[in-house]
Amino acid sequence: MGKRVALVLAGCGVFDGSEVHEASAALVQLSRAGAEVKIFAPNIEQMHVVDHLKGSPSDEKRNVLVESARLARGNIQDLAELKVGEFDAVIFPGGFGVAKNLCSWAVDGKDCTVNQLVKSTLEAFHSAKKPIGLCCISPVLAAKVFPGCEVTVGHDKNVDGRFPDFDTASAIEALGCKHVCTEVNEAHVDSANKIVTTCAFMCKAPLHEIFDGIGAMVGEVMKLA
Amino acid sequence: MGKRVALVLAGCGVFDGSEVHEASAALVQLSRAGAEVKIFAPNIEQMHVVDHLKGSPSDEKRNVLVESARLARGNIQDLAELKVGEFDAVIFPGGFGVAKNLCSWAVDGKDCTVNQLVKSTLEAFHSAKKPIGLCCISPVLAAKVFPGCEVTVGHDKNVDGRFPDFDTASAIEALGCKHVCTEVNEAHVDSANKIVTTCAFMCKAPLHEIFDGIGAMVGEVMKLA
Repeated sequence: MGKRVALVLAGCGVFDGSEVHEASAALVQLSRAGAEVKIFAPNIEQMHVVDHLKGSPSDEKRNVLVESARLARGNIQDLAELKVGEFDAVIFPGGFGVAKNLCSWAVDGKDCTVNQLVKSTLEAFHSAKKPIGLCCISPVLAAKVFPGCEVTVGHDKNVDGRFPDFDTASAIEALGCKHVCTEVNEAHVDSANKIVTTCAFMCKAPLHEIFDGIGAMVGEVMKLA
Repeated sequence: MGKRVALVLAGCGVFDGSEVHEASAALVQLSRAGAEVKIFAPNIEQMHVVDHLKGSPSDEKRNVLVESARLARGNIQDLAELKVGEFDAVIFPGGFGVAKNLCSWAVDGKDCTVNQLVKSTLEAFHSAKKPIGLCCISPVLAAKVFPGCEVTVGHDKNVDGRFPDFDTASAIEALGCKHVCTEVNEAHVDSANKIVTTCAFMCKAPLHEIFDGIGAMVGEVMKLA
């Protein structure tokens, strides 16, 4: 039987939800690894809806679970229904929705609060010593919930102009965590905490390199599961 | 210099827009092939908005270009701005949005009309002998615009229960085209018309096999470009 993996989404679209290519890459890599995947999202209103053409918020209201269902092709459950005993691992793709809907990082940075259901999900997998995979901005969830853990969001300097959000690394360090610099096609494994991270779109890189980095993350999660 | 490829979207979400995993797979494969990709969508209202959690239409109104921008991370243009002279090939991912927003296949089947801008785009690439790649339900666009062409949408029988929409093949034949049966990881090449097709989610298959089929389609398009 394949490893049972829960994937947690935050909407559908990089500026207000889950980054669609990161979510899709994780699902392709999990499929190739023979994992049995179930998809979840919190049943809450999005912080806001961004018109992705204009790049600015609109007046609309959308629900995180309903929009995440677009990425799940309708096959999705309320995060409240996730039972950690039914899974071997959990993965959080990135996208601004993570920093807006799953926690308040987009507004509050390191002083953010994490959605209670997201926090309890992370704590449950961690307590059960089951691996947690995160990419892009999602590692801030681990940094906030598990002080002292090791994560990567890429580089802590804007190397070659490829890491414009490099200051996320210092915010993670300010939370008492260790930030480990990595390239986009690599994943970092915190073996003690079973937390696996990759920088994905935190690096300006060709899409296939981001895809490969997420493949590295998924591969390490599967090894630990 | 890499091949210049236009990708045409129909929204964001399998039930009312572009199938997100097909669009993402095409972009990953094009990235790996070193293509220079620009993304387009028609600036029109969606036929309807489907609540992907419930699987039923909602009262909302959304715009195809604005929602497609979610898949394009904001980097998208109105299809009206596409100049065939600036590209070596064009690719249309699938999803019900193709059959609802780019043509009326979802309502009218083989008697559908094709959006005028989509039709003129296809005709322009065809006349210039530049390849056209299509997957999932998108091959019906070619079947409607280029009678006599060869395409695949998978199988013409519901082999092993994997091809529930097998009757699309006979509708394509009724349009005077040749339907060629293929597996999900294969692409069919109509060399005379430079039309490359793969069945993608028309087959119930693991996501990585669909990803590989789209890779085969992209590979053949790149060879012809």
